[in-house]
Formats: sequence, structure tokens, C-alpha cells
Amino acid sequence: MPEIRQNIITRQWVIIATERARRPDQFCSDDQLRVDLPARVPTCPFCPGNEAQTPPETFRDPKKGKWKVRVVPNKFAALAAEGDLVRMHLGLKRTITGVGLHEVVVETPEHNLTLAQMEDEDVERVLRTFLERYHAVLADPRVEQVTLFKNHGPAAGTSIEHPHSQLIGTPIIPSEVIERLETALDFFNNTAGDCLFCVTRNDEVEERVRVIIESAHFAAFIPFAALSPFHTWIFPKRHSASFGNIQPEELSDLARVLRRLLRKLYDGLADPDYNFTIRTAPKESNRVKYYHWYMSVVPRVTKIAGFELGSGMFINTALPEASAEYLRGIEVE
Amino acid sequence: MPEIRQNIITRQWVIIATERARRPDQFCSDDQLRVDLPARVPTCPFCPGNEAQTPPETFRDPKKGKWKVRVVPNKFAALAAEGDLVRMHLGLKRTITGVGLHEVVVETPEHNLTLAQMEDEDVERVLRTFLERYHAVLADPRVEQVTLFKNHGPAAGTSIEHPHSQLIGTPIIPSEVIERLETALDFFNNTAGDCLFCVTRNDEVEERVRVIIESAHFAAFIPFAALSPFHTWIFPKRHSASFGNIQPEELSDLARVLRRLLRKLYDGLADPDYNFTIRTAPKESNRVKYYHWYMSVVPRVTKIAGFELGSGMFINTALPEASAEYLRGIEVE
Repeated sequence: MPEIRQNIITRQWVIIATERARRPDQFCSDDQLRVDLPARVPTCPFCPGNEAQTPPETFRDPKKGKWKVRVVPNKFAALAAEGDLVRMHLGLKRTITGVGLHEVVVETPEHNLTLAQMEDEDVERVLRTFLERYHAVLADPRVEQVTLFKNHGPAAGTSIEHPHSQLIGTPIIPSEVIERLETALDFFNNTAGDCLFCVTRNDEVEERVRVIIESAHFAAFIPFAALSPFHTWIFPKRHSASFGNIQPEELSDLARVLRRLLRKLYDGLADPDYNFTIRTAPKESNRVKYYHWYMSVVPRVTKIAGFELGSGMFINTALPEASAEYLRGIEVE
Repeated sequence: MPEIRQNIITRQWVIIATERARRPDQFCSDDQLRVDLPARVPTCPFCPGNEAQTPPETFRDPKKGKWKVRVVPNKFAALAAEGDLVRMHLGLKRTITGVGLHEVVVETPEHNLTLAQMEDEDVERVLRTFLERYHAVLADPRVEQVTLFKNHGPAAGTSIEHPHSQLIGTPIIPSEVIERLETALDFFNNTAGDCLFCVTRNDEVEERVRVIIESAHFAAFIPFAALSPFHTWIFPKRHSASFGNIQPEELSDLARVLRRLLRKLYDGLADPDYNFTIRTAPKESNRVKYYHWYMSVVPRVTKIAGFELGSGMFINTALPEASAEYLRGIEVE
């Protein structure tokens, strides 16, 4: 019989549809593998030699010589970098001027590389760049929240092949973030001041069945109520509300965990399209005891359809425990 | 400059990305048109002659002779029709047995027809079937909420070409429904007992700029903070919490409004993939003063990407007012 499970952090209900469940390897992508693309594409704005096609860079590593990571403002930014923050209420209509910062992190000079196939130190350089730009974008007085995310492949919403991620600094705290904060505060208040995320991670590490990778500072596991097949959370072990407070040894450890997880997906599901995002506290709440930052990785191997749009419930056709077992079994360095 | 608008019913924020906005006709689909498919497919389980390939029908219209609409249990149901409803709490883990009803409404015997191209009376027959099955599914004592929805085309999450919609009766009230109820109750309590939906519809009909179709009983308009291009709401004018309370003359009017809207999308965007859903109150709240049922139609012309997953905010690359003007200008019977 199918089972309906609740995602304790978002309160969403998920139908684990055992009757229509597929074997893990049946979720394999049939798109072209990333390595089969050319290493350099003359028309790609993110390939070396085409730097003039992007707006002037806001960051590069190393500072001189050939860059390994490069950050530029998004040429088609969702928000305007210049302008005043103005909130307006006109009857039921609420608007805010669309100001904020929208940057692109070009993760490597190589067009056909991907985080899954980089060295640990290269992934670490990307994460260090995230941290650097996270602080820089958050320093803008108009910005309340920074969302860090990656769209890998067309099903994940990108048409640009060259490996890149993005940051958007918004002048508001998104409703999804507010809901998570409220749920976590509620838990904190109704227990002995416990962190919902710390308890969840402890439970998962103890139970082991949904854990994919455990390291000194992180645990990567499939949530009990995973919204979709292979949906994975990476939780830091040390309690901290904000990604901005990550320590150097944690960053280095995260690079290795993330690279290994993405490599397991690459090998196990034939380079699936995926999104990842770093869920971190808003500017004003970056030290609170009740919230805990984490990463969410969502392979886009199934589509969001009318039932999900209509009900907010999800139907997951993969058993979380079976998905975790499958990914644990994929050997990577 | 872009504008950030709040969806007053869900509290979600949407970036109306004027800088990356496309012209309405640039959202046209380049898939095959529905009419270019064969009228009958020997291997299709929903085509006439293949009735034995589906589970026994729960409804048909007309009762005898050749069917025009047919309802069958979903062969790959997300929930089990048989079994007891059992709720379990084990530490942080909350589960419910996956019992409920999942039915498929086969909308027409013709494989290559679509609601957009049917006659009003045929669309009305489909809606009458929805109503009939809505009541039948809700009558199951284990069911708290019925979600009615349609997935049209692969981007909307279906691989079955034959025109069909679905109903799922769940043993829980989904979190999205609870959130809408809470927001609406809040509004009711903080005004002179007003209905948030009635006020919104009044405002839109008065302002006109986002209205696509207005009829005796319904208004179809693009929400002020539409989540994606051409996202459309159809609001009934008479206050009513539940689709289950719709009157015969309203049903007939809705059929015409829905058919005309879908035809405008078909002609204006070259048969785009889309979802629609009927958002109605749960069983226990079907007469409340503060909630109001409605339909939501979501053309799947853009992808949900990492920013949307990470923040819950949406980026809409079409100006709602321009989308509405474009659809108003598409002439249909």
C-alpha cells in the first residue's frame, strides 16, 4: 500500500507511490552526457576569450592570470542593480520596486566540465566564491535575503550549457523562507528549545537507511518525505542558522561531500538535470537558535504536474530508502 | 525597472521581470498540434474498442450506447482504493496509510480532440462529469479533499495523449489548501467579514486590464501577481466555498468560458502544454463564508528552476497586463 509521509520542515505531504514505483536505474537520463560536449564553444559567453560578452566581473579567482572561477552580474538580471527600494500598498495590490542583485558564478573555464567531475579543490573554490559573494550581496542595504542556486540542464530551467550557478539578493524575505522559520520557531518553542534540523539529522544518522554520505561536518540523506526521486538534503552537523557562518574546514568538507553526491548522481542516473539551492536564514535572523541552514539537491527526473500544482502535495514514485541504498552503492572516490 | 508583486491569496512574491520580458507570441509552443495526431490509436487504452484495457468504469455518459465521456479508476493509482485510514506518529515521522480514490475522466472518444476544440455542450458534459465524480469521491468517509486537475502535454506531466483529466480524493487536507484557508480567514476577520476572492474579482472586473473573458457567472483574468506567463484564474461571481455547490446554469456558463479560454491559448500560443486545477474547499468547510472556489489554468511555457525551488518566489517573464491584452485580442466563437 502507498504511504503518505509528512515533510516535517515544510509540512508538505508526499504520497510515496509504491504501486507505481520504478527501480532506481529506471530514472536514468537519456540526454547527452556532459563529457560528450566540446571543451570550448566559440559562441559561449562564459568560455575563456569571450569575457567581453559579459558585464564586467565582480570577482575572479585567482586575482591575476587565467581565471578558474569568475563572477559577473547577470546580463538578463531578474532585478535591477540600481534604484530605490519602494514598497507600495494600493488596496489589495502590494508591490515593491524590483531592485536587487543577480550574479552568475562561472564555475570553471571548461565548457564540458561539471561539479561532479571536478577535483575537490575546484569544487571548494566554487563554494568559497559562493561565500564571498553571499557576503558581498548581503552587504547591500536593500537586500534581505540571498538565494544561491544552480540549474543544471534544460529540465532544471537553463539553456546555458557552460557550468554556472547563480545568486539573487532580494529586497524581501520569500514566503517559503518565512514558512520554514515559523515551523522551526514553533518546534523550538514546543520542545526544550530544540532545533528541528539538528533533531532530524540526528535521527537520520542514527537510523542510517536514508543516509548517502556522512562526513566529519555534514550528513547527506534522502528526506523521509522526499518530494521527488533522489531529492537529497545536506545538513551541517554544527548548528548554524546561516551559510554565511560556515568555517573553512567545513567548507572544504562540504566541497567533498557535494562533489561525491553529484558524482553518484552523474554515474548512477547518467548525468541527470538537477537544481540545488542553499537554504539559509535571512539577514536579520542569521544567528537565531531555531533555524539551521542546509543544501537541497533536486534531480529533475520527473515533472511537476496538475496534482502537485493543485494540491501542493507531491507524488514520489521512488521509495526514499531504496533511492538512498542505490546511491550508497555507487562507488566514487 | 522590474516590479515585485504579491499574490494576495498565496502570499507568494513574484518578480515581473520586465527586463527579460518576451512578446506574448514568443511563448508559442513548437510541439505538434493536437489536431495533427490520428483520431484513433489502436494501442491507446482510452480509445473506443480498448475499454477492456482499463479497470471497470465508475461512470459513463450516456448510460447506454456509445460513450461520450467515461470515468475509470486510474490503473496506476497514486493511492489504494481499499484499506483502512491509519495515522501514525513515530518521533518526528508522520505517516498516513495511502488510501484514497484516483480516477481518470476520459473526456472524449476522439484521440486528437481537446477541450479547446470541442463544442460547448461537450465541455459541459465533461464538467458535469467532474461534478458527479466530485460528489461520489467525496462521499467516501476516508476522503477529506478532492483535487480535480488536468495535465495536457508532456511539459505538464503526462505521457498519455488521449484527452483526459483526473480526480484524486485524499485522506488529508493538503498544506496548500490549509494555507489558502488561513489567509482567507485572516482577511475575513480583519475586514467587515469580506471574502478575499470576491473583493479580488470585483477589483479585477472594475479595472479590466487583466480580464480576458467576463460572462454572466464568471470572470477569467490573469492575476496581478501571475506566477508564470498566461497563468489565469477563473472566479465564479456568486460566493461559494465549494465547486460541489455549482448550479446548472453556472456549470453551463463555465463550460463556455473554459472552452473559449483554452481556445484562445490554443490559437494564441499554438497548443501549449498546460495544467488546470479546481481549487475547492475541503469536505468540512464546504459552506464557509470566507473561502471561495476557483479554477487555475497554468500554461507550461516556462520551467520552474532553482530560484523558484530555493526561494518560493517566481520570476514571470511576461507582463500580466500584456498577456491579458494579447489573449483578449485572439478572436474565438
